[in-house]
Amino acid sequence: MAQTTPNHTLTVSGWAAHDSSGNITPYTFKRRENGVNDLTIEVLYCGICHTDLHQVRDDWGTTMYPIVPGHEITGIITKVGSNVSNFKVGDRAGVGCLAASCLNCEYCKDGQENYCDQLQFTYNGIFWDGSITYGGYSKFLVADHRYVVRIPENLPMDAAAPLLCAGITVFSPLKDNNLLDSPGKRIGIVGLGGLGHVAVKFGKAFGHHVTIISTSPSKEKEAKERLGADDFIISTNYEQMQTKSRTLDFILDTVSAVHSLGPTLELLKVNGTLAMVGAPEKPLELPSFPLIFGKRTVKGSIIGGIKETQAMLDVCGKHNITCEIEVVKPNQINEAFERLSKNDVKYRFVIDISGKSSNL
Amino acid sequence: MAQTTPNHTLTVSGWAAHDSSGNITPYTFKRRENGVNDLTIEVLYCGICHTDLHQVRDDWGTTMYPIVPGHEITGIITKVGSNVSNFKVGDRAGVGCLAASCLNCEYCKDGQENYCDQLQFTYNGIFWDGSITYGGYSKFLVADHRYVVRIPENLPMDAAAPLLCAGITVFSPLKDNNLLDSPGKRIGIVGLGGLGHVAVKFGKAFGHHVTIISTSPSKEKEAKERLGADDFIISTNYEQMQTKSRTLDFILDTVSAVHSLGPTLELLKVNGTLAMVGAPEKPLELPSFPLIFGKRTVKGSIIGGIKETQAMLDVCGKHNITCEIEVVKPNQINEAFERLSKNDVKYRFVIDISGKSSNL
Repeated sequence: MAQTTPNHTLTVSGWAAHDSSGNITPYTFKRRENGVNDLTIEVLYCGICHTDLHQVRDDWGTTMYPIVPGHEITGIITKVGSNVSNFKVGDRAGVGCLAASCLNCEYCKDGQENYCDQLQFTYNGIFWDGSITYGGYSKFLVADHRYVVRIPENLPMDAAAPLLCAGITVFSPLKDNNLLDSPGKRIGIVGLGGLGHVAVKFGKAFGHHVTIISTSPSKEKEAKERLGADDFIISTNYEQMQTKSRTLDFILDTVSAVHSLGPTLELLKVNGTLAMVGAPEKPLELPSFPLIFGKRTVKGSIIGGIKETQAMLDVCGKHNITCEIEVVKPNQINEAFERLSKNDVKYRFVIDISGKSSNL
Repeated sequence: MAQTTPNHTLTVSGWAAHDSSGNITPYTFKRRENGVNDLTIEVLYCGICHTDLHQVRDDWGTTMYPIVPGHEITGIITKVGSNVSNFKVGDRAGVGCLAASCLNCEYCKDGQENYCDQLQFTYNGIFWDGSITYGGYSKFLVADHRYVVRIPENLPMDAAAPLLCAGITVFSPLKDNNLLDSPGKRIGIVGLGGLGHVAVKFGKAFGHHVTIISTSPSKEKEAKERLGADDFIISTNYEQMQTKSRTLDFILDTVSAVHSLGPTLELLKVNGTLAMVGAPEKPLELPSFPLIFGKRTVKGSIIGGIKETQAMLDVCGKHNITCEIEVVKPNQINEAFERLSKNDVKYRFVIDISGKSSNL
């Protein structure tokens, strides 16, 4: 049985929701002391992922209250366990969604811990010691070093934070579909939010022709001018969608609202792949005709493994890719949630946890 | 505008439905005379595909009446066009779903005519001359030789007929997922009907461990004893499905009724593929969680190209694979439709079109 804080003695200030209203208030709780395999991290910034909103409101029916959200964490290492040799005090660290896995199955051994069936998340998970995990909406984090990555020196810590979830979530399927080193493909990105806007940056950095597929005509100008998108299709415009039928090699669908995959699938060439990374709480509609007549593929993907996350950050360092963010103070989290639920953010909220204004 | 018989003068006896009641009655109509690229085929047998039932009843809203169904055709060549060098009078021929395609696009050039966007079907299609195509529920067929295949000498013409649609439909995704020459995989077949039972035979011939996933407990004994299946899961038995979670490498879903893909996807290992070959008229339910948490793939596939169909028939000749059939007379077609709509057939009806009792 999970316990909140079995023998935990490290007092930490954070922010939590206590019921399905999702209202976030200051919350002081206990973490484990830094163990031999652990790193203690002073949290500087934490991104607000759409998952946080789902979880604090218990949309998936799995929330354990009180919940301290946050899995897009950047900070500075303040303690290093005696078994840890690859990090030192003062290092720039990042923690994403993963807190624990079995470390023993074929997926863990292959750097795909994210598909381990014993996987536990950075918050609302159950750690090896039986404790419920608390995330990055808090001043300090204690994390097993095997789930910690480095933030490249040239990236600002605030705009890098969302890379730990949004970044790896869109990077992994691009890598998985051989789009890192094969420029010139025509790729589509469904949804221009926290995930979609990073996907556009990756797509352009990797040399592809990038089309945004969106319900919001107002996003077109900025998508092209600021993010470098090549084309923009309004998904509710039937004629526009028809014109672009069978034109794309690959589509990344980042939308976590329920939607039909049929019209989007029609945009793919024969043998094309739609990678789905959103997690709508209700099933999507999958019409058989566009799937079978185009020999098309719908493939799921969730975040990425640790080695892959470090590779993604290194790519971001090389191409100078970060997220477009709005920085908020901890007392603005509820307001940010409210705006996020209306998709009113460009393109990710990041909480300034430490209150230090420098970018370190 | 499509015309029924533009300048067609060859009188043929057949069987047609005239409205969405789907009732089949004898029907005399015209076909084109054998052209320079054509073969005339005396039809011996024609399988009854579930598509025939959908089409005669206009389930997909695309039926042009009167409709002469049938795309699982075996027969003997009686005339050969002057441009045709690879067939001769007396040859054992097969015709499947394809009547015409552009012959010029990347898919046609690559032997994937089935994905050409100008594709026309053997019945209810529109041929190059503007005529509506009529299928194999008829005494004679005139077909362009580029869409005709050979039936291996060792296969009986009646039990081989359904290979032209059911056979290639299940063979193509097995080939596409590298399951022809990589024995020892654990594969699942959803639905044990006309398609599923051939898939089991292919799966066993290619050296795999084959699990049937079915709603009908009554089919288990025969599936194992007669078809050689290794395992049998009742898809409505939640506990049984749970026990088999993450055990299969590949699943072929042959069911053309609306169903949720979620429980089936859970049976797949991480990175596993579900190939869908059924064509339910309403969208399927695709829950995101089993898709993304298992990095699973849902892929569509429809029949196969001509070269691939010949390869499939040659494999069937080599392994002596044919369909399990019930032979009916033309005046029993309506009764067969009725039984098919209740899934009361083991495993495919084949119409003895010629009335000749030999297997030739």
